[in-house]
Amino acid sequence: MGEKDKAYVEIYDTTLRDGTQAEDVNLSVEDKIQVALKLDELGIDYIEGGWPGSNPKDVQFFREIRNYHLGWAKIAAFGSTHMAKYRAEEDPNLRALIEAQTPVITIFGKTWDVHVRDALRITLERNLELIRDSLAYLRPHAERLFYDAEHFFDGFKANSDYALATLKKAIEGGADCLVLCDTNGGTLPQEIAEIIKEVRSRLGKDISLGIHAHNDSDTAVANSLMAVSVGARHVQGTINGFGERCGNANLCSIIPGLVLKMGFKCKAGEPERLRRLTEVSRFVFEIANLPHNKYLPYVGRSAFAHKGGVHVSAVSRNPETYEHIRPELVGNSQRILISDLAGKSNVLYKARQFGISLSAEDPVVKEIVVRLKERENEGYQYEAAEASFELLMRRIVEGRKETFGFFDLISFRVLDVKRLEDERSLVEATVRLKVRGEEEHTAAVGNGPVNALDNAVRKALLAFYPELADMELEDYKVRVLAGEPGTAAKVRVLIQSKDGEDRWGTVGVSHDIIEASWQALVDAIIYKLLKSRRKRLEAA
Amino acid sequence: MGEKDKAYVEIYDTTLRDGTQAEDVNLSVEDKIQVALKLDELGIDYIEGGWPGSNPKDVQFFREIRNYHLGWAKIAAFGSTHMAKYRAEEDPNLRALIEAQTPVITIFGKTWDVHVRDALRITLERNLELIRDSLAYLRPHAERLFYDAEHFFDGFKANSDYALATLKKAIEGGADCLVLCDTNGGTLPQEIAEIIKEVRSRLGKDISLGIHAHNDSDTAVANSLMAVSVGARHVQGTINGFGERCGNANLCSIIPGLVLKMGFKCKAGEPERLRRLTEVSRFVFEIANLPHNKYLPYVGRSAFAHKGGVHVSAVSRNPETYEHIRPELVGNSQRILISDLAGKSNVLYKARQFGISLSAEDPVVKEIVVRLKERENEGYQYEAAEASFELLMRRIVEGRKETFGFFDLISFRVLDVKRLEDERSLVEATVRLKVRGEEEHTAAVGNGPVNALDNAVRKALLAFYPELADMELEDYKVRVLAGEPGTAAKVRVLIQSKDGEDRWGTVGVSHDIIEASWQALVDAIIYKLLKSRRKRLEAA
Repeated sequence: MGEKDKAYVEIYDTTLRDGTQAEDVNLSVEDKIQVALKLDELGIDYIEGGWPGSNPKDVQFFREIRNYHLGWAKIAAFGSTHMAKYRAEEDPNLRALIEAQTPVITIFGKTWDVHVRDALRITLERNLELIRDSLAYLRPHAERLFYDAEHFFDGFKANSDYALATLKKAIEGGADCLVLCDTNGGTLPQEIAEIIKEVRSRLGKDISLGIHAHNDSDTAVANSLMAVSVGARHVQGTINGFGERCGNANLCSIIPGLVLKMGFKCKAGEPERLRRLTEVSRFVFEIANLPHNKYLPYVGRSAFAHKGGVHVSAVSRNPETYEHIRPELVGNSQRILISDLAGKSNVLYKARQFGISLSAEDPVVKEIVVRLKERENEGYQYEAAEASFELLMRRIVEGRKETFGFFDLISFRVLDVKRLEDERSLVEATVRLKVRGEEEHTAAVGNGPVNALDNAVRKALLAFYPELADMELEDYKVRVLAGEPGTAAKVRVLIQSKDGEDRWGTVGVSHDIIEASWQALVDAIIYKLLKSRRKRLEAA
Repeated sequence: MGEKDKAYVEIYDTTLRDGTQAEDVNLSVEDKIQVALKLDELGIDYIEGGWPGSNPKDVQFFREIRNYHLGWAKIAAFGSTHMAKYRAEEDPNLRALIEAQTPVITIFGKTWDVHVRDALRITLERNLELIRDSLAYLRPHAERLFYDAEHFFDGFKANSDYALATLKKAIEGGADCLVLCDTNGGTLPQEIAEIIKEVRSRLGKDISLGIHAHNDSDTAVANSLMAVSVGARHVQGTINGFGERCGNANLCSIIPGLVLKMGFKCKAGEPERLRRLTEVSRFVFEIANLPHNKYLPYVGRSAFAHKGGVHVSAVSRNPETYEHIRPELVGNSQRILISDLAGKSNVLYKARQFGISLSAEDPVVKEIVVRLKERENEGYQYEAAEASFELLMRRIVEGRKETFGFFDLISFRVLDVKRLEDERSLVEATVRLKVRGEEEHTAAVGNGPVNALDNAVRKALLAFYPELADMELEDYKVRVLAGEPGTAAKVRVLIQSKDGEDRWGTVGVSHDIIEASWQALVDAIIYKLLKSRRKRLEAA
């Protein structure tokens, strides 16, 4: 099948509206603009910006986005059919849609007979008028006009004649596409297929159908792909599957599924755009200030990560053995998890990545492998602590001291006192170290022992290394390792740090959580100092 | 359709094997035992415990689990067909499977012709012998014998005749069920349906088929349900969809899908078991020391949470408007805005379980619900800390003091000093408390601050309560809670304790890990003392 024989599927993104219904997802107007520009670069066809009738933030978004030139995407405004007490031309909600001045308008209406009576409290006949009249009124104001049939599948199962009647009215009103919504997310793919087939046999194969799925049954992506396989040519979803409850259908899975597996085409599926998919996914997580979900299909950090021994050896011979697509197609990459990769070729691979020059014959490679295995036996793990891994390699390859000469540690002390009778407590840390020949002895309190230590060491170093001011500890994780029972067990601490430009992870292991935290803290600081020094040298 | 007309679908859990292939999921033998017991309570039919031929930890699991009585589940051991250089009876891997002494054995073999030649480097004919001979050799050693056809769907697409030939050999070898595996997770539900239909038309409708799906295409749950809809009666998956890369098919979505939506039955789908699904999901996240994914279908905290204004008002009139099932059916609950779970019926249910007499009308029930919500907002979680929950309830219902009168805490102090120049360190804790009118002031060292505190408090109490001698702290987990950045974050500590008879979990939360550990430690001790007192009273 040639490229031009492939059928086109329109991609309609609702991250900015339905996506923000997710618990913990909140976007400012500025965030929304940034996401819209990114979606445009990706080649999304339609970007639903919000519901101008429902909140002022969305009105502002529609006003501001007009100042930007979009290369491909068209902005859509969303709203409901007009209220029963008004005529269409009097309805404030429809007026707000027109005032948003978007090339695309999408309105939703009721399909499910019970809800027309119980929620809208109007007759079934009146609801049909609302649908037709709302669309007909909006028709001249929009280049493209979409109708979202809310609760379509539940409504169809309850009363198929009425559900179809609502669609016919939407066609009469002038809708370009009828989008069948599984609003509660309760429908399974086999039902989606059956119902869409029946809709097409009763309304004709020429009508243009779309799908809008939610993930409550854990089948939103499958439902969307299934709908396309039986004739839908418009898919609504969100980046990363953000959305109310369990989320909307995830476009980051749908787009590659359509293009790489089902033989359809869409703008965002063109090879050079599809390669940006992973970046877009991570960008949207960043903007929403949420950690990236590493297990996401196609775009997650674990999506092409291999841990099991059998898999690793097979996958290095032939990636197809355990990878369903080539990760580069979506801008992702294969990862062999460091914990399982204490082999020579992996050390060389990482050295290249870190910019450390190292030849395969160099005996130091063997030394690194041995050291790495020792550390892993002690409980260190470098999967999420690549900065500590880089420091470990540099210490060996470049013959560096533990702290790379930035400072020498003398001692630290932590005191944690609780008086339970009056709930008074004191958490205090002191740190002694030597920097450029001077001894620094500082003390600080904190809301816990590790926090106090963190405060004390920064206090000691900041005067000498002002660049530490823009370094932040972003995340702190503790894992108790198996081995000794109970509180005598070893712990592994992972610290994630960031500055304006980078993020880096470091690790520490000890029976003593304070000592383990100290190791990870010191590595994080040294990594930052090395990075600044390298930058200064490059600039000089 | 009556209950007894419904077809039964076997649920086969592989959390303990495939689940631990996930990045960041590592379970100790003790963790695995705990998960297995929980899965048994849930009514899972088969629990795959590991691959005894591949690692000693799994061998230990199979040895230890024999000491437990399981009410329903059968334990399965997993392995591969025998190596080509051996005969079946000489193969160390098959021997390890037999030595695991499990009632169920599952082995996997190659389906995809290319892999037989490239990975195994043997003839297609020899692979067929491996499959038949391995199964035939194991047959007398297992009550139930399953065959996992690795890469079945990819293999079928490449060479359907050969793929079917491998299945026929598995039948010849005596397999009870042929489990079709989508090993790379690249297959879509419409293909699953087509291929299974063709398999059944070519091998006969009587063969027993299963499905094992991975989530690389974001369709693992849909693929599993689709397979059942076209005739499979055995589904493999993991709790929470843990698994290599993007995970395995999520049983927490599959079980309610099969039972509540598709009209099948399974033990774990019986109403009183299904109601424990949410608890089991959270328990497994806790044991794996991972934060619960709130967006999970059915069992996530957001699965029935309503944020959108339209939805909230509609849902409070009629939940069916925006909820695909009643959340109580899976032990979850509706949430509006930020308000939390732990309703009255839950509290009553737990009270019954703990043997606390409490009537639904008692105003104290409301008080518990309120207190519980407060604690959950502070970061406490009781899914893996039922002993702390029981103590919380008894404190309120029975009007008990914090320590139930066993002792009064006065203060503790922890000192942690490290001299880095000579690597000397001192970790010391002191504890002051009052027992039976006497003040005890003890000190102890430890290999970390929590261990030192643990040692000091036991030292103080042991003379008064000799029963503490047979109490051990079995596991200690720390989770950093979201909120404040870096080392200033709150932590939640979970302690798992045991004596000769029981295991119990307790929890503490604080910005200070030592304080949080102290809370969990004290609860663990009090729970043990209460238990002993109750026993003495019963004996008297």
